[in-house]
Amino acid sequence: MHSGAERVLRYEGKAKRVYRTGTPGECVIEFTDAATAFNGERKGEISDKGRINCATTSIFMAMLEEHGVPTHVIRQLSETELLARDVEIVPLEVVVRNIAAGSFTRRLGVPEGTPLSRPIVEFSYKRDDLGDPLLTRSHIEVLDLAPADVVAELEVRALRINELLRSHMVDRGVTLVDFKLEFGHTADGELVLADEISPDTCRFWDTATGDKLDKDLFRHDLGDATPAYQLLLDRLGATGVPA
Amino acid sequence: MHSGAERVLRYEGKAKRVYRTGTPGECVIEFTDAATAFNGERKGEISDKGRINCATTSIFMAMLEEHGVPTHVIRQLSETELLARDVEIVPLEVVVRNIAAGSFTRRLGVPEGTPLSRPIVEFSYKRDDLGDPLLTRSHIEVLDLAPADVVAELEVRALRINELLRSHMVDRGVTLVDFKLEFGHTADGELVLADEISPDTCRFWDTATGDKLDKDLFRHDLGDATPAYQLLLDRLGATGVPA
Repeated sequence: MHSGAERVLRYEGKAKRVYRTGTPGECVIEFTDAATAFNGERKGEISDKGRINCATTSIFMAMLEEHGVPTHVIRQLSETELLARDVEIVPLEVVVRNIAAGSFTRRLGVPEGTPLSRPIVEFSYKRDDLGDPLLTRSHIEVLDLAPADVVAELEVRALRINELLRSHMVDRGVTLVDFKLEFGHTADGELVLADEISPDTCRFWDTATGDKLDKDLFRHDLGDATPAYQLLLDRLGATGVPA
Repeated sequence: MHSGAERVLRYEGKAKRVYRTGTPGECVIEFTDAATAFNGERKGEISDKGRINCATTSIFMAMLEEHGVPTHVIRQLSETELLARDVEIVPLEVVVRNIAAGSFTRRLGVPEGTPLSRPIVEFSYKRDDLGDPLLTRSHIEVLDLAPADVVAELEVRALRINELLRSHMVDRGVTLVDFKLEFGHTADGELVLADEISPDTCRFWDTATGDKLDKDLFRHDLGDATPAYQLLLDRLGATGVPA
């Protein structure tokens, strides 16, 4: 735990804790080793995941910022902590899919690994009690979850992030299958990418071997996930915690 | 059973049988008393339903045709049979919702009876083995289920049909809550409304009493559905089988 600053637990998620700091508009995000799947039905730990996902998220967010995508991350504070801007989360999970996997295969009867003819964006209602149900644009409108211009902008950003992540990973021998994003508004109304980008929230396949390098190892009990998470981080060329 | 014409069973659905006739491009649709719910998990009969739904569908389809909406129905042949144009069904269920009910309430946590700020159209994949999953426009595109211009036209037609049905029923003291449509292409490529319009495929509430006049009575075991189906037909002013 980062010492010195006053902090108050603001929110405890399934794999992260968010603390208030003494500075308005900022928060500290602590990544933990806790792992859940299938909306909390499966629970456990992936050892060292907090450190790995914190580093992975930090690298991805910095890469996106370099390419003009605003994110909530200010800087990495410690092995498991990021300093971030406070945001009000848009209550939508934004999923981008390049290849059929996960709920897409189960719901629609498409075999895992089927390439999609183009990347698609799905929106789900961020409601654990309902199992994060899929939404259409009409649902978002009549439930008043986000204005239409924000939804359109989320789709544009999600597709841009997909292009950036995908080409970044192709160069590192990793196929980006799909991923989930969350966005939020800062106090001054800026829409920024929030949450994390890690093997908890993305499906990554080793392009050469097809090996899964993500939480599907935990979801489906396919073996120790830690080495796969670490391999993904190694491919990103991480060289330790920034000062 | 209508006598005289040669007929071959072409398709047996959950509540209807479709026969080929001797005439190319035509078929006979027989309405049965069989009732199913929750994707076939609940099965039974609603006595006299075949007759009532055949008459109800015949009246609704004729009303829509009068207002310029093309349908597959040619004419009623007998108490339980319609003569219809053969169509290749678009593999989408088109649902229109005015008021929250059914899967909308369960999936999205909205109380039954909540009016929606505007009518919405949902598309589901017509796949019993998958439980007819909800689709987004992107799903329809990447699964190649229907061209974008057909999907756009389905939405326009569904909303037009909603306006016509809703105002027709308002005048008869019945609230149209939601309904499911199917469309198909005739041999010469015309897109027409197909299937049926009945208390099996619509939710109707008595505006004065709130009583359900539809298959929810069967789905949720709320009492004998036959009198409710008959009441709905009576409200439509049915005066027996056309000659």
